[in-house]
Amino acid sequence: MHETQIISALWLIGILAEAMTGALAAGRKQMDLFGVVIIGCATAIGGGTLRDMLLGNYPLIWVENVHYLLAIACASLLTVMIAPIMRYLSSFFLAIDALGLAVFSIVGAQKTLMLGYSPLVAIVMGLVTGVFGGVIRDILCNQMPLIFRKELYAVISLLTAAIYVGLKLLGIPEWINLSICIVTGFSLRMLALKYHWSIPTFDYQSGNDQHSH
Amino acid sequence: MHETQIISALWLIGILAEAMTGALAAGRKQMDLFGVVIIGCATAIGGGTLRDMLLGNYPLIWVENVHYLLAIACASLLTVMIAPIMRYLSSFFLAIDALGLAVFSIVGAQKTLMLGYSPLVAIVMGLVTGVFGGVIRDILCNQMPLIFRKELYAVISLLTAAIYVGLKLLGIPEWINLSICIVTGFSLRMLALKYHWSIPTFDYQSGNDQHSH
Amino acid sequence: MHETQIISALWLIGILAEAMTGALAAGRKQMDLFGVVIIGCATAIGGGTLRDMLLGNYPLIWVENVHYLLAIACASLLTVMIAPIMRYLSSFFLAIDALGLAVFSIVGAQKTLMLGYSPLVAIVMGLVTGVFGGVIRDILCNQMPLIFRKELYAVISLLTAAIYVGLKLLGIPEWINLSICIVTGFSLRMLALKYHWSIPTFDYQSGNDQHSH
Repeated sequence: MHETQIISALWLIGILAEAMTGALAAGRKQMDLFGVVIIGCATAIGGGTLRDMLLGNYPLIWVENVHYLLAIACASLLTVMIAPIMRYLSSFFLAIDALGLAVFSIVGAQKTLMLGYSPLVAIVMGLVTGVFGGVIRDILCNQMPLIFRKELYAVISLLTAAIYVGLKLLGIPEWINLSICIVTGFSLRMLALKYHWSIPTFDYQSGNDQHSH
Repeated sequence: MHETQIISALWLIGILAEAMTGALAAGRKQMDLFGVVIIGCATAIGGGTLRDMLLGNYPLIWVENVHYLLAIACASLLTVMIAPIMRYLSSFFLAIDALGLAVFSIVGAQKTLMLGYSPLVAIVMGLVTGVFGGVIRDILCNQMPLIFRKELYAVISLLTAAIYVGLKLLGIPEWINLSICIVTGFSLRMLALKYHWSIPTFDYQSGNDQHSH
Repeated sequence: MHETQIISALWLIGILAEAMTGALAAGRKQMDLFGVVIIGCATAIGGGTLRDMLLGNYPLIWVENVHYLLAIACASLLTVMIAPIMRYLSSFFLAIDALGLAVFSIVGAQKTLMLGYSPLVAIVMGLVTGVFGGVIRDILCNQMPLIFRKELYAVISLLTAAIYVGLKLLGIPEWINLSICIVTGFSLRMLALKYHWSIPTFDYQSGNDQHSH
């Protein structure tokens, strides 16, 4: 199996995992099935879409391959059907979500490098691809984006993208680089979840009373 | 009167109706008059703007014809003036909003087809044009987008766009196609409102307590 | 010192001031340090990014000069460090924020004119550049955008952009124009803050109970 096929397969797993997190978030807000599908789609393709819009890189992937949207819609509806047993699958689900985070961050950086941008831009775009699907999901569900205060999600995305770009610059063969980054991103995320790793928070209570209600 | 003039006139009605829903939403949040105008504009042009940004189709309509913004601003301020009698006009208002939904969905699909995209992309962009103005309005007003749980709004948008694209592929003359789609979309929306039609919702209460407050 | 250097220096001050407002807003929501940096960046570059995306003007400034992001990240983290003494600096902080508002509005209009757009589009883009960084900040923090109901923020942005464009059309030399606009925008903002100037609000309580909770 060729390395681009592997990364494509992992990317598809990531997209479907993201669609499921979107569908579950929609379910927590008692949306109707159509809302569930829209949130699922926005979560799955939101990060990559934002990246390509920021880079002016058209056409968007899902505009060129609109069938991805159908797959994502199916994954969202499937989530509704298996929701009753979802809590028994939660470890499995968190694992594929972690895999998705690593793959999205790598793919985002990879595509940006291929478009000829600098390493630093590629790392930033890895982060955008990795986490902004979730940010868009939370905005559409009217809740504070979780990634800004939970379990290193964003830090791991940035780190994974940075390692990928760094090893690429060092001339490491692509398949070794991909393996290292996926294992690292995935493991860090699972460890962060298990041990509730976090970085310090900033708690600023200003003197004005505008937020005191 | 030529068919493109009719669709332009209906599109303008739709834009102004959307501006009014934006202004009313801003009023529910006690915004100042300038906020009312900004929300009115974002609601009226948000769906079409997002569509064109997703397609990379520049310049945007309101950048090329900035006078639309002035018309929308006036419609927003007019809404403030007639607000005291708004509840007596609510049936009329819901009717022009329904007309706007149908026209936006058709125009969104039509423009996307004219740009050379596939039928499926056109249907998706009909939906984006039809409903994302309202989504942007609700995000700016910090409330959960209503279309994700109310009266089939999004479903009717998708359906109208799909019928338009389907009849187009079958070679039905444009003016017959437009008539069928506008009547269908408008009627479905009015019936959905009257009989409180809805599709099933997805109510997912996960085991974690992060949303229990 | 050349006028473009002066406007660049003021623009940098504006960006750093915006980053600080973003960091403080993130702190009010107890985000982690990484969330603080992301909100700081989104606030500082959000308005200009939205303007360039609406105009299809690529590459974005911070994609071409990614070092701006590093400066903004540092400003965000610096804000966390000086937060304990922030309330003693609040007048100074409001002053540089006011300066930033004026400069952003001018630069937004200036760039749009340089791209060949009409005066009205330039004024609208001045407003977008001036205020939408703050709008994006508030959306990411899940709160109603403050500019829609506070102290003329948006009005001053529009007015500053309009004066700049008007004087430009009249053939006033650039440095005189810049001086007038910066002084006017800055003074109006400080006066609006001092005297709690505001424009009328629109308070619409509809008959339905959807917002009565």
